[in-house]
Amino acid sequence: MRILAKDMLAAAQKRHQEEVEAAGWIHRIRDMGGIRFVILRDRSGLLQLVLSEAGTSTEASAEGSPLGADLTLESVVVARGIPALNEKAPGGVELRLRSLECLSKAAGDLPFQVNGDVSKIGLESILDNRSLSLRNPKIRSIFKIQSTIIEAFAAYLRQQDFIEIKTSKLVGSGTEGGTNLFAVDYFDRKVYLAQSPQLYKQTMVAAGLERVFEIGAVYRAEKHDTPRHLNEYVSLDVELGFIESEKELIELEKNLLAYIFAQVIEKNAADIALWNAVIPDPASVARAPTVSYEECLKIVNAEAVRGGKSAASASARIFDITPEAERLLCEWSLREHGSDLAFVNEFPRRHRPFYTYPLSSGSGTGEAAALTMSFDAIFRGLEITSGSRRQHDYNALAEALPKFGLRPEDMAGYLAVFKYGCPPHGGFAIGCERLTQKLLGLPNVKEASLFPRDRKRVEP
Amino acid sequence: MRILAKDMLAAAQKRHQEEVEAAGWIHRIRDMGGIRFVILRDRSGLLQLVLSEAGTSTEASAEGSPLGADLTLESVVVARGIPALNEKAPGGVELRLRSLECLSKAAGDLPFQVNGDVSKIGLESILDNRSLSLRNPKIRSIFKIQSTIIEAFAAYLRQQDFIEIKTSKLVGSGTEGGTNLFAVDYFDRKVYLAQSPQLYKQTMVAAGLERVFEIGAVYRAEKHDTPRHLNEYVSLDVELGFIESEKELIELEKNLLAYIFAQVIEKNAADIALWNAVIPDPASVARAPTVSYEECLKIVNAEAVRGGKSAASASARIFDITPEAERLLCEWSLREHGSDLAFVNEFPRRHRPFYTYPLSSGSGTGEAAALTMSFDAIFRGLEITSGSRRQHDYNALAEALPKFGLRPEDMAGYLAVFKYGCPPHGGFAIGCERLTQKLLGLPNVKEASLFPRDRKRVEP
Repeated sequence: MRILAKDMLAAAQKRHQEEVEAAGWIHRIRDMGGIRFVILRDRSGLLQLVLSEAGTSTEASAEGSPLGADLTLESVVVARGIPALNEKAPGGVELRLRSLECLSKAAGDLPFQVNGDVSKIGLESILDNRSLSLRNPKIRSIFKIQSTIIEAFAAYLRQQDFIEIKTSKLVGSGTEGGTNLFAVDYFDRKVYLAQSPQLYKQTMVAAGLERVFEIGAVYRAEKHDTPRHLNEYVSLDVELGFIESEKELIELEKNLLAYIFAQVIEKNAADIALWNAVIPDPASVARAPTVSYEECLKIVNAEAVRGGKSAASASARIFDITPEAERLLCEWSLREHGSDLAFVNEFPRRHRPFYTYPLSSGSGTGEAAALTMSFDAIFRGLEITSGSRRQHDYNALAEALPKFGLRPEDMAGYLAVFKYGCPPHGGFAIGCERLTQKLLGLPNVKEASLFPRDRKRVEP
Repeated sequence: MRILAKDMLAAAQKRHQEEVEAAGWIHRIRDMGGIRFVILRDRSGLLQLVLSEAGTSTEASAEGSPLGADLTLESVVVARGIPALNEKAPGGVELRLRSLECLSKAAGDLPFQVNGDVSKIGLESILDNRSLSLRNPKIRSIFKIQSTIIEAFAAYLRQQDFIEIKTSKLVGSGTEGGTNLFAVDYFDRKVYLAQSPQLYKQTMVAAGLERVFEIGAVYRAEKHDTPRHLNEYVSLDVELGFIESEKELIELEKNLLAYIFAQVIEKNAADIALWNAVIPDPASVARAPTVSYEECLKIVNAEAVRGGKSAASASARIFDITPEAERLLCEWSLREHGSDLAFVNEFPRRHRPFYTYPLSSGSGTGEAAALTMSFDAIFRGLEITSGSRRQHDYNALAEALPKFGLRPEDMAGYLAVFKYGCPPHGGFAIGCERLTQKLLGLPNVKEASLFPRDRKRVEP
């Protein structure tokens, strides 16, 4: 029976002198005089194999060459032998080989050193060669953590009585008016790849499911090529009914992120260590401040002056929540509140989609009416979430559409959702790759996507 | 604080004479002389509200009309009152109202009766009006069960040390040669919607993750419009390394399905009851027989004769695993093995994709070499899974391609995955909607998709 690298120490302690089997990839080969050490890598870790003259197998020696003489790095092998304690070996154990069977021999022209320093492999090479780059434990750890993020996101929401939904990614038209959509040839017509499950998750709340979440791909046909954008990404979407304002959504997201971080800390300690990453503790998430859009601009401008990075001149003023502003806000949040996370709410209406709920219910005071029950979450200098309470009133929505250049007749499908009773509701979405990126401090969000898509990259 | 319908009995028992709040949709209204009974529906169930003259609220009576006089079915309300035990009310409790606030008034022209018999609503109407049809507890229950299926699928595989992955649905070309693909306008070129994450999950195994699963959308540009096909569906994908044959995959799928069914039984008892559905017990899943493709044809032909549904004439013989054959095989499996599930393995090579591993390793005996380590799972007369061990040898794959009309140069990206060491591996995929359909006995798979896509339907 196969024993994983991580369980070999226990096997050495328990089954003294009993032959066991290990299987995996050849990670490293070291010749030390008459003894050859091979490091085997499996999904659980590394294991030292010892190949000495005394331990030649019938299988290998039948070929007339010493055991493992023709091994190549990254070949897949099954190793059989006796586990033995050795304090100097990784994990304190080694396998003294009796036989070594090659299941799949790797070609000798590896495009980069799998067992080496990740920083020496360029991003393009990492992405072009996923079947090799993911063999590096540090690169693989990104996706072990991402798997935990997805698991924890779902687990927390299920605990809060949310239902997981799966909605179509092929839509007849875009919720927000058809810009930035990829068109699909769908039999004899065009449809579009969904920018978000916005309409569908709202439909589910109106339909009485009340609390739903979805984990799925979303598509943005945006031409920019930056370290923070992907044309296809995994959106962690949440929507719930019977809320009064975006503040309840912010509270939910704080609790959700605190839970996700706690799970990552619990389940991925070794992966975190490979990146020297610091995962925020739940208390620091709870401390995350919420500032209004207007306050945020004041804070980031003061922060820019403070850092001496910007003159206090009018021309250098930050007038919007730019990437620079996001960075400065988090610097401030960390210093003043001890939190890597900050929320910005009450965005002006012009910055948000038509369905965003107004802050005051049209009291007539121009300024107040122009703000919305919306928010962004900024984590370590990067927006990871956008959310809002939504307009649930049919007539108010129908009136809002023309102000956003949309025609009610084009949005009939959207409006229909609100015709037969829809509770006040709202939601948000977390970008899964951005959250992964910022947890580990990856320079580029593409590193947090197994097969990222950008303007040029559609392979592999 | 809001109390859900399911928790109101406990509230009545605990907080005697204390006012509480319920919120939800108006499910039914009954006038009984001087008393009006309203059934409120929330995500947890139904609750009886009692509106009597004595209990008129200031909010409603200020309008000069009796409490709830202008209520419409499906409007969203917040009800405040005193919970009281009443054996005749649903759940043994009712809320004696003090006030009733309407949050969202439903238009009076409901296209069908939400609180009525589901069988009287046509499928098209159910799908056209998801925000209404899902309010029917029976229709909603389909997706509560589907949420459990997805949860249990992931939970079982995580227990078995699998990692969840998310791969791109936009591919440069199709794994199986480009037929049945939807084309996407991707900036200045064409890409395609992935038919399956096949290549990606194999890449992950080769990359040393060894055991992966993915829950994601897949796309088939097939023109047929049947009760068993969708053009977009949720594929529950599994792939793992270090296997010897498809038999280990069948064993894994049995354990996985047994776990999923046990979770559905545990978590969705009320939902199952609405459909009078019988969820297979784990023992019956374990009893599921595996028959070879050849045996299967013998069984279904015998079964056809036995049922008197087919003459034993040559012209009526079943020569392939048609929908009729799938139905007959499950009849046989249920009668002979007491199982709703059956596996068919060892398909001839012509029926399976090029990457399927041959049953004998090219021993030269023509017959044996033409079979494969492949299988289908048939559940209650419907194929829900296709799987196989895959060819992991670079040279064998390169040699197989031309036999399937594929050119190695077109498949360079696929071949590259096997160049640097790939363990023997295999996997399978379960169609989530088909599994849901068959668990509940739904006539059409579209009923098990929130927003199904077929040749004509791309809305809502």
